[in-house]
Amino acid sequence: MSNPTAAMLVIGDEILSGRTRDANMHHLAGELTKAGITLSEVRVVSDDAPAIVAAVQALSAAYDTVFTSGGIGPTHDDITADCIAEAFGAHIDVRDDARALLAAFYEETGREFNAARMRMARIPDGATLIDNPVSVAPGFTLNNVHVMAGVPSVFQAMLATVLPTLTGGAPLLSQTLRINRGEGDIAGPLADLAARYPALSIGSYPFQDNGVYGANIVMRSSDGPLLDKAMCELAEIFPA
Amino acid sequence: MSNPTAAMLVIGDEILSGRTRDANMHHLAGELTKAGITLSEVRVVSDDAPAIVAAVQALSAAYDTVFTSGGIGPTHDDITADCIAEAFGAHIDVRDDARALLAAFYEETGREFNAARMRMARIPDGATLIDNPVSVAPGFTLNNVHVMAGVPSVFQAMLATVLPTLTGGAPLLSQTLRINRGEGDIAGPLADLAARYPALSIGSYPFQDNGVYGANIVMRSSDGPLLDKAMCELAEIFPA
Repeated sequence: MSNPTAAMLVIGDEILSGRTRDANMHHLAGELTKAGITLSEVRVVSDDAPAIVAAVQALSAAYDTVFTSGGIGPTHDDITADCIAEAFGAHIDVRDDARALLAAFYEETGREFNAARMRMARIPDGATLIDNPVSVAPGFTLNNVHVMAGVPSVFQAMLATVLPTLTGGAPLLSQTLRINRGEGDIAGPLADLAARYPALSIGSYPFQDNGVYGANIVMRSSDGPLLDKAMCELAEIFPA
Repeated sequence: MSNPTAAMLVIGDEILSGRTRDANMHHLAGELTKAGITLSEVRVVSDDAPAIVAAVQALSAAYDTVFTSGGIGPTHDDITADCIAEAFGAHIDVRDDARALLAAFYEETGREFNAARMRMARIPDGATLIDNPVSVAPGFTLNNVHVMAGVPSVFQAMLATVLPTLTGGAPLLSQTLRINRGEGDIAGPLADLAARYPALSIGSYPFQDNGVYGANIVMRSSDGPLLDKAMCELAEIFPA
């Protein structure tokens, strides 16, 4: 049986303008691979409601699970929660459970719980809150979409909460062989090997190192013995 | 008049598995911003022909220009050129101009120009070659899609060739004010300001620095005087 699939939607003008380099995609990719969930697609869109709504609908329909990152803070450009509600035709308003969390946090830290901060308690009906151990304002899960913060420390904490609730597949194992020959010299025998092992994902990632051409051949599968067998064959074809 | 729009399609299992952290998106985002072209969407898909074809068709129809990165090498997992041809119903085969470039390069460097390397001369009919000053194997432009390598040094070189051929808009200017107050305290007055300057893109990017909450407020526009005016107002509302 093949592993469950996932997609990610990164929301934020700051990524698309080049101001910020996204860190959450790489983190999510690594965590999902360990959990045996295949990250099949990532999209990055700007803080634009129609673009967010369309992407959420497309990804939610196409994959088992969707993770979003960004746009759930208190400022005017934080429109993710409302877009998720719109994408699923859900009602959204300030919800008592989220408001209570925030009220307690601001009382404790002596800051004003004003109208802007109240925006972070806007949660669609039917959603489950996702804990935010860093800065309290919660994420939420609606249907198969997990709505999480863009700040990397918060994104990572929320992911750590959500991941154990998901059904993963067999963890994807990976083996790499570094071959100090040009990719063009490797390609023919490698294609033959790939044809003999259709169940393996086999990738070739070229490099140049002090003028030496080479490639890292990466094989991925959740079938350890099959991976070992193919890797031994590869090492025989290209001895060190 | 609004600036031309662009999208990027990153092709590669290695990004989605978390093995490699993409570097081309951030580079492209910065270069396009300088050129006055708005990067509106990025998608990352795996080495899967139907996924690549569908994404190329969707992005090519929705935006003025599309850049792809990855999948144009000599190995079996390099399927981008064939997918681009399929997306536009173009015929694809080894093309004489690309073959001549590669033949000269391999003759000069004393390496075999074999069948695998010949794959890199497969170019769709009607496409224009994009120079590769790093490792010769060319990219190409078909319709509004620029097909470039995934290796960052090659991607950057190809982009430097392509960018001057595109019609940009007015360069997007950006100004940032760091405010050492919680985003929730800033949000109300900031939303009022944003409402008074609908032509500006105004984003708020929170941080925590040694326990101090703050936010960088970034304003973007190609209208310098307008940007200055709004930034002065913001600085008056939140004096240092």
